Amino acid sequence: VNASELKKRLVQIVGAENVSTESVDLLCYSRDASENVGKPDIVVWPNNTSQVSEIMKLANELRVPVTPRGAGTCLSGGPVPARGGILLVMTRMNKILEVDIANLQVLVECGVVWQDLNNELMPYKLFLPPDPASKDACTIGGCMAECSGGIRAVKYGTFRDWTLGLQVVLPNGEVIETGAKTRKGVSGYDLTRLFIGSEGTLGIITRARLRIFPLPRHRLVMSAYFDSMESAGKAIFRVMTSDLIPSAAELMDKQTVEAVSKFMKMEFPECIALAIFEFDGSSLGEVKRRIRQARKLCEREKATRVDVSETVEESDRLWQARKSAGPALATLKPSSLHEDATVPTSRIPEMLTRIEQIAQKHNVLIPTFGHVGDGNLHPIILYDERNPDEKKRAEAATTDIFRAAIELGGTLSGEHGIGLSKAPFFSMEHSTQEIEIMRKIKNVLDPNNILNPGKIWAGA
Amino acid sequence: VNASELKKRLVQIVGAENVSTESVDLLCYSRDASENVGKPDIVVWPNNTSQVSEIMKLANELRVPVTPRGAGTCLSGGPVPARGGILLVMTRMNKILEVDIANLQVLVECGVVWQDLNNELMPYKLFLPPDPASKDACTIGGCMAECSGGIRAVKYGTFRDWTLGLQVVLPNGEVIETGAKTRKGVSGYDLTRLFIGSEGTLGIITRARLRIFPLPRHRLVMSAYFDSMESAGKAIFRVMTSDLIPSAAELMDKQTVEAVSKFMKMEFPECIALAIFEFDGSSLGEVKRRIRQARKLCEREKATRVDVSETVEESDRLWQARKSAGPALATLKPSSLHEDATVPTSRIPEMLTRIEQIAQKHNVLIPTFGHVGDGNLHPIILYDERNPDEKKRAEAATTDIFRAAIELGGTLSGEHGIGLSKAPFFSMEHSTQEIEIMRKIKNVLDPNNILNPGKIWAGA
Repeated sequence: VNASELKKRLVQIVGAENVSTESVDLLCYSRDASENVGKPDIVVWPNNTSQVSEIMKLANELRVPVTPRGAGTCLSGGPVPARGGILLVMTRMNKILEVDIANLQVLVECGVVWQDLNNELMPYKLFLPPDPASKDACTIGGCMAECSGGIRAVKYGTFRDWTLGLQVVLPNGEVIETGAKTRKGVSGYDLTRLFIGSEGTLGIITRARLRIFPLPRHRLVMSAYFDSMESAGKAIFRVMTSDLIPSAAELMDKQTVEAVSKFMKMEFPECIALAIFEFDGSSLGEVKRRIRQARKLCEREKATRVDVSETVEESDRLWQARKSAGPALATLKPSSLHEDATVPTSRIPEMLTRIEQIAQKHNVLIPTFGHVGDGNLHPIILYDERNPDEKKRAEAATTDIFRAAIELGGTLSGEHGIGLSKAPFFSMEHSTQEIEIMRKIKNVLDPNNILNPGKIWAGA
Repeated sequence: VNASELKKRLVQIVGAENVSTESVDLLCYSRDASENVGKPDIVVWPNNTSQVSEIMKLANELRVPVTPRGAGTCLSGGPVPARGGILLVMTRMNKILEVDIANLQVLVECGVVWQDLNNELMPYKLFLPPDPASKDACTIGGCMAECSGGIRAVKYGTFRDWTLGLQVVLPNGEVIETGAKTRKGVSGYDLTRLFIGSEGTLGIITRARLRIFPLPRHRLVMSAYFDSMESAGKAIFRVMTSDLIPSAAELMDKQTVEAVSKFMKMEFPECIALAIFEFDGSSLGEVKRRIRQARKLCEREKATRVDVSETVEESDRLWQARKSAGPALATLKPSSLHEDATVPTSRIPEMLTRIEQIAQKHNVLIPTFGHVGDGNLHPIILYDERNPDEKKRAEAATTDIFRAAIELGGTLSGEHGIGLSKAPFFSMEHSTQEIEIMRKIKNVLDPNNILNPGKIWAGA
C-alpha cells in the first residue's frame, strides 16, 4: 500500500487532526500494559460509528491491517499491532448515550472509561458490577473485547453477563446491532457473546448496551491471615461453598504482602497467606451477620488473625493495597509477566504449590495473588530483560505455568485474553476441531484477515 | 434416500430396540408443546455420544435431516421435524456424571431432567437456579438449546449465565468440548454461548457443565392486588429499581386470575392485576425486612391488598397457582398460542394496553401473565381451531403482538425460541446483515443443512 495515499484517504474520513504518522504517536501506540511491542504505520482517532465504518471499508479495500484500541491497559497484547497498518484509537467515542433507570440499563460508546460511567451512575445508587483492576483508565470497549472480570466477578460475573447488546462495525464496514434491550432473549444466534471476548478480531465494538444494578448500601471487608497455604485454601473453600456469597474473595501470598507493605507503607501481620473477603448487601445487620459467619469459618481453619474493617475508609485502603499488588511487585525487578492462569477453585492449593515448584526449577521469583474465589490467579513472573538468561528462564517458567493450569483442568486466561502473549500456547487448551471452527467463523466475518490479525492463535 | 437402507444402518449403530418406524412413534414425535406438527421418517434413541456421532456422520453422508429432541416441552416447534428425516430422542442420555461440590458445578448428559438434577442437589443444599415452568419434565439439553429462563431468571439469569462448557456433536459427526471448568475464561471465541439458544441447528449438545449455587435457606412470597394495571406497573417498577432484588416478580391479569381460581379451586380477592414477588436469602430476618419494604412500595402505589405467605406450603401453593396459569387458560378454548414477547420492563404497561387493543381488534381472548420483572410476558391467544375464521383472527392477533413487542423495543422471544412458530417474523427483529452472519455461521458448521433445517429464519 502507498502510505501517503492511505493517509490522504484517512484524512478525508476523519480530518487531518485525527490522523498521525508522527514517530512519537507510532511509538506510544506500539505498546499496551503487557510486554508486547508492535508499531503501527498510522494512528487514527475516529469520532463516530460512520467514520469507523468508512475506515473499515477503506482498510478492507486496500487490505491494510486494523488494530482497535481503548485505553491500552490490556495485559496480553490485544491492542498491539502484530502487522503494522492502522491503529484505531477509540477513546474519543466516549459519550454516555442513555442512562435508562427504569430498565436498569445504559447505552454507551466504546471509549467511555469504566470509572466515568460508574461516577455517572453513583447519584442514582446504581453501578456496573464487573470491576477490572484498571477501572480508572480502561474503556468499556476494551472490557467487551477482553470479557474483563475483576475482583467482584466472583459474585457478579464478567462483562458477558452484563451486556444486553452491541453495535459493531464489521471488517467490511457494515454496521450491525446485536442482542436486545431485555435480559431474556433467545432470538437467533447469540452474536453479542460471539463478539465479547473476541479480542477485536471479529468486529469493532462501537456501542454497548449494559445492564446496571442497585449499588449495595453496605460493603464490609475482612482480612484473614494464615500461616500455611493449605489452611488459607481450606478457609476459602468453606466460605465459597457456604451461602454467604462474598462479593470478593482474594488471596495474596507472603511475597505479595511484603511487597505491598513496602509499596503502600502499610503494616501487615506476619503471614504465609492473606485472604481478603468482601460482603455486600442492603442491610448492615445482614452484612455483619455474614462477616461473623465467615470469620468463624476462617478461625475454624486456623486463621492466625482476622480483622474486619470498621469503616468504608479502612475497606477502601485495604482494596487500594490489594490493587497495588501488581505495581508493588513490578518494583522488585525491571520486568514482569502478569499472568491470569485460572483453575477450578478446588485446585488452587495445588496450583500454588506448582507455581512455587516452577519458580524454584527456573530460579525466578513468582509472587502470586489473585481472585481466588473464582480460581483466577495472577502469578507475576519477575525478571530483568537485560539479563538474557533470566529472561529465558522467566519465559520457560511462564510456559510451565500455562501447562500446569491446563493439567489442573483450567484455562490459559481468566480475564486478560490470549492476544499475542498466549497465542503460541492456544492449542494446549483447544482441540484442532475447536480452533478450526473459530478460524472459520473469523473467515466468515473477516475474509481478508484485516482486523487485528496475528492474535489468539499462532500465525493467524 | 432408501428408507430401509437408512433404517438398517441406524440399527447397526444403536441396535434394533432403539430405532422405530412405527406409526405410533412417528405420530408421537411429530409434536412438541406448541401448535406445530411435522412427522419424522424414523425415530432413534441414542445412548451415548459416540452413537450420536455415528448417526450424524451417516445423516451427513446420506443428506438426511436430523431433528434433536429432549422432552418435547418446547413452545416454538424447535423439536418438530420441518422436513422429515431422523428424529433423535436424547432422553436416554440421562446420567448425572459429576456433582462437584468443591467447585460448585455439575457435569450432566443432555437428557437429564431439570427436576431430577435439582433433587440430586437438594441434600447438598445446592441448586441450579434457572427454572422453566416445565421443570418436572424438561431436559437440560432442551434448556440449553432454547436458552430457557423461567420465574427466577429475574434474579438469577437464564441458562447462558449458568453454563461453563458443552460437549457438542457437530453435523459432520465431530465431537468438540467448549468452554472451561472455570467461571472466568476468555480463551478464544465463546463457542459455548454460540450453541446455547441455537435451537439445535448448529450441533447436538450431548453434555453440559453447569454452575450450581447455594440454595437460599429462606424464600417468602408476597401477593399484591391492584385495581388498575397502571398501579400494578408502577409498584413493580418501584420494587425492581429498589435494592430489594426479588427472586421472582410475576404478574397475572384479571382473566388469568379468574381462570386459575376455577382451575385450582382457590379463592382470590377481586382485582384487575395480581403481582407476585418472591424474596430469598440465607437469613429469615433479612428476607422479612425486604418483604416489609416491598409491601410498603406496593401500598404506596395503591395496592388494594397485600398478603405475605406465612409458610413454605402457602408459598408453594401460590407458585403452583401461578404455574397452572397456562393449563388453566388452555381450558377456556380448545386451542391456544403461548407467546413470550418480551419488552423492556418500563414498556410493560404499554404492552399490556396494546395486547388488550389487539384482542379487541381481532375479537379474540388474550389473557396475559408472565415474568414481568424481566419484561417477559406470556399472552395466551385463545381460539377454536375448528373455527377457521377464529383461527385466522388468532393468527393475525399473534402477528400484531410480535409487531407491538418489536415497536416497543422488545424481542420476539424471551425464552421459548423462534423455532417454526416465529420463523416467518424473524426479519421483523433482525437486519439483513445480522441474519446473513447467522446464516453463514450455520453454513460453517452445517454446510449440508441437515441439522434441524427450517428453523429460526423462514425457508432455512
